[in-house]
Amino acid sequence: MKRTDRICRILQILMENPNRVFPLGYFAALFDCAKSSVSQDMKTIRESVAEGGYGRVTIATGARGGVRYMPHISGEKAQETLREIQRKFLETDRVLGSGFLYTSDIMFDPGIARGAAGIFARRFAESEATCVVTVETKGIAIAAFTAELLHLPLIVLRRESKISEGSTVSINYFSGSADRIQKMSLAKRALQPGAKALIIDDFMRGGGSIKGIQDMLGEFDAHTVGIGVMIVAESDHRKKIGDYFPLLLLDLDEKGEGVAGVRLNPEIENNGLQVESQPEK
Amino acid sequence: MKRTDRICRILQILMENPNRVFPLGYFAALFDCAKSSVSQDMKTIRESVAEGGYGRVTIATGARGGVRYMPHISGEKAQETLREIQRKFLETDRVLGSGFLYTSDIMFDPGIARGAAGIFARRFAESEATCVVTVETKGIAIAAFTAELLHLPLIVLRRESKISEGSTVSINYFSGSADRIQKMSLAKRALQPGAKALIIDDFMRGGGSIKGIQDMLGEFDAHTVGIGVMIVAESDHRKKIGDYFPLLLLDLDEKGEGVAGVRLNPEIENNGLQVESQPEK
Repeated sequence: MKRTDRICRILQILMENPNRVFPLGYFAALFDCAKSSVSQDMKTIRESVAEGGYGRVTIATGARGGVRYMPHISGEKAQETLREIQRKFLETDRVLGSGFLYTSDIMFDPGIARGAAGIFARRFAESEATCVVTVETKGIAIAAFTAELLHLPLIVLRRESKISEGSTVSINYFSGSADRIQKMSLAKRALQPGAKALIIDDFMRGGGSIKGIQDMLGEFDAHTVGIGVMIVAESDHRKKIGDYFPLLLLDLDEKGEGVAGVRLNPEIENNGLQVESQPEK
Repeated sequence: MKRTDRICRILQILMENPNRVFPLGYFAALFDCAKSSVSQDMKTIRESVAEGGYGRVTIATGARGGVRYMPHISGEKAQETLREIQRKFLETDRVLGSGFLYTSDIMFDPGIARGAAGIFARRFAESEATCVVTVETKGIAIAAFTAELLHLPLIVLRRESKISEGSTVSINYFSGSADRIQKMSLAKRALQPGAKALIIDDFMRGGGSIKGIQDMLGEFDAHTVGIGVMIVAESDHRKKIGDYFPLLLLDLDEKGEGVAGVRLNPEIENNGLQVESQPEK
């Protein structure tokens, strides 16, 4: 087998399995070659992947070591992705009045959802989350892609408890955007105590729904290690939650009924995507 | 730039953008090299990808030609994926009684959802679908991954009409598994007349909910070109719909309350994954 072919095959396997660790021996056995050859291949793959702006390959040595492909969108690609999403949000026929925007087509566009997920996956790569959590419905695609990129399970809170969920825990919370009490429900078996949750949602106004998710996590002795939101309305400054990472900011007009603008998260706009990351080993 | 590096970079771009067509000139410009070199690279990539069992690369010549990475899971990998899902379904503590299984963790497991989507994407690669359609909630992750792999928009029918959907069309249908009338709703702007829908759902018993989706499609002058379902309960033989493609079959016991077994779709079990496909150009 030619070296180039082997490199192609290895890269494919790594990219198909983001954030999964493969021992070098796995590839040596698969392609019937020396570990030292695989090790050489990895150097080539690692350098090329670093150039590409989509991901990075980490190689850890030692008994529990191995090779891992981590999605790692570049600052430039993150800005490109967000400008494309921004253009979508700014289409004039999205405004439904009362400050509501039609966003379903955006939130479920696989290219957009995958792009947003790539940014969250990089931002929260070192969060040590053990699961991704969202509440139905419009954030599910983004959360699912994020969970795939981070190789974590996805947990979806339901609005109503369903017979197919078995016994559930339910909470009520006040939603500012719906202006009423709403309910969330989660199967008792869905979450282990001590779980560390990365919360992903499509839209935030006052933060009531994310606060609801956090209350639910508390019921399970789980806690939040990160919050990522596709778009956050900036009119209401009394957010119910603390630290969150928005991709876009929605400026509502003075009455809170029309859209005055959609901006990129200034941090991404100005610096690309800076993430504290552990030194490579 | 070394040939091996260029090949790595091209493969990355193709895999990050499934089913998108890139003219050879795109890569020639990006890497500042002759089209003939890119063309040589493509032959190597195409052969290596064909061996890998994850996808295939098609190269079309002519003015509108270009290169495309299509996910194309091998029969062997499809069987492996399904056996893993089958094991999950057979875990004894999933049975909730009354023929209900706890499946949320399976349907939202990104690895499983992505694996199932890979099989649907191959099966329906030639369906000429213009969109993927599902109804909330548990099929959304599988449908989102399928839509991404096929590079199609995803449309999610809601149970209730929401203010953020604008004006909607609603239908009522009889759900055999819920034993009552249920509602589905879709924004008027969500679907264009003439759309060709690939319906993806997590579970089917009598077929009422998929029949409901089809009725909804009819309201939009859209029609169905394929139906893929993760798992279908076999106790009720009076399905309300025609041709569908299940990944797994759930055998309920005589009373319809317990699980007697979970089988692979015999077509996949026996032949891997045979799909009528157009001859490559």
